Amino acid sequence: MTGKTIQEIHLNERASFSKTITEGDIYQYAGVTGDFNPAHVNEVFARQTLFKTRVAHGMLSAGLISTVLGTQLPGPGAIYLEQHLVFKAPVRIGDTVTAEVRVIEIDAARNRVRLETVCTNQDGSVVLSGEALVMPPRAKT
Amino acid sequence: MTGKTIQEIHLNERASFSKTITEGDIYQYAGVTGDFNPAHVNEVFARQTLFKTRVAHGMLSAGLISTVLGTQLPGPGAIYLEQHLVFKAPVRIGDTVTAEVRVIEIDAARNRVRLETVCTNQDGSVVLSGEALVMPPRAKT
Amino acid sequence: MTGKTIQEIHLNERASFSKTITEGDIYQYAGVTGDFNPAHVNEVFARQTLFKTRVAHGMLSAGLISTVLGTQLPGPGAIYLEQHLVFKAPVRIGDTVTAEVRVIEIDAARNRVRLETVCTNQDGSVVLSGEALVMPPRAKT
Amino acid sequence: MTGKTIQEIHLNERASFSKTITEGDIYQYAGVTGDFNPAHVNEVFARQTLFKTRVAHGMLSAGLISTVLGTQLPGPGAIYLEQHLVFKAPVRIGDTVTAEVRVIEIDAARNRVRLETVCTNQDGSVVLSGEALVMPPRAKT
Repeated sequence: MTGKTIQEIHLNERASFSKTITEGDIYQYAGVTGDFNPAHVNEVFARQTLFKTRVAHGMLSAGLISTVLGTQLPGPGAIYLEQHLVFKAPVRIGDTVTAEVRVIEIDAARNRVRLETVCTNQDGSVVLSGEALVMPPRAKT
Repeated sequence: MTGKTIQEIHLNERASFSKTITEGDIYQYAGVTGDFNPAHVNEVFARQTLFKTRVAHGMLSAGLISTVLGTQLPGPGAIYLEQHLVFKAPVRIGDTVTAEVRVIEIDAARNRVRLETVCTNQDGSVVLSGEALVMPPRAKT
Repeated sequence: MTGKTIQEIHLNERASFSKTITEGDIYQYAGVTGDFNPAHVNEVFARQTLFKTRVAHGMLSAGLISTVLGTQLPGPGAIYLEQHLVFKAPVRIGDTVTAEVRVIEIDAARNRVRLETVCTNQDGSVVLSGEALVMPPRAKT
Repeated sequence: MTGKTIQEIHLNERASFSKTITEGDIYQYAGVTGDFNPAHVNEVFARQTLFKTRVAHGMLSAGLISTVLGTQLPGPGAIYLEQHLVFKAPVRIGDTVTAEVRVIEIDAARNRVRLETVCTNQDGSVVLSGEALVMPPRAKT
């Protein structure tokens, strides 16, 4: 069940996770985090914004990055140290978001891996970019 | 319903949001994001980790920062541009997390506000730190 | 609150439960079971499949059979022993599924009842068929 | 994103998925399927049953088998044809269930794979056993 150790990870290795984001996702996410910003849950308000309709929380897309890091690369046992996020474009109800991570730096001495993290929508537009720093699991358990 | 414009925001202004994180929160968050990392949803696995029990997703605490930015400071109508996150300590089931933001830089010319963002638990320990960059709403609508 | 004992059940007795399956049902089901197969939660992927769109998890329809057995026939107090499931056709978002069970064998000596179990959609097409074996409650409590 | 074709699957190959089953899981599952059998959602009733407390729906554990088949072995693109389920023991709130599948028959001519499917709890006790029949994806897409 344990993920990849630093010895098993190579530069430019990639992994991804995709999901169509529904109205229900946005509402459940709001319910858990308390983020009832009307841009997410008030269609009347949202119509008057730049995005013209309710959009997903940017942190919901960021959550898909964590899904890839914690279940695939490195996977279970990894410790999440840092994440930088640049919100680039809105995710609307029905958009399919793909979070992809790519290894860009391996520091074996300190057991740290840096990854480029990008979320795109179904048209290939970048909705979120940034970088993650993680500590892979030390050994198989 | 619109939040504060840059003219209404002052340096060192603060806002916060607190919530006791439940097992149900963690499971619903996993259900929305697909992050079934056993550290979050498998108690048998989690007991063998550094944290000794299931912990909340770091991005769930990050979501509380977005709650403060999107509902209080600046509030509705703000555009979330960037967020840096440093995960410092685990959040366990039953911990009460407070996300606090503090204005550290105001760039009126470019309509941008930088905020220090910190999440602490009920003991005052920092679980998450970092900075946010947001664009306050231009005017009341 | 207790269901029917074997003496109260007769051959060919029927019971059913119907529900329109929503996108939210499928997503919540995925969130509980961890089944994020893209056939269920990724519309872009699903369009390229045989079924052309996201479909419900087959086990979600199977859950409706358990609903009938556990709440109607025999009802509360029954012990679910076995279930055979043959997945025949997809359930799409908005389809109304009816799970119907029919008693086909009564073994009073061993207190066991065998039932034919069929799920159909709003057009009468069979989406799931099979058989269940249950132990009715011994006596009213 | 596509799973394993029949050429990539070998006899005795295994895959598994584990999750600690919470009260919230059982209640959300009840809410989706309508299975409000008091054995699952009524503690007063449940205390008088053989199991002495509320137990998870057997079909919830069965859902974890589908998770393994649909996301790992064969994975996305597989068609679920049949499942036999033998309910062996109850799953209580807080139990950690592991669903494991093992390939026991490969019929390359008809593109069908038969798997033994077993769910165990944290003590290694079998809570659910049975067999699945699936059609792996034909080719990578």
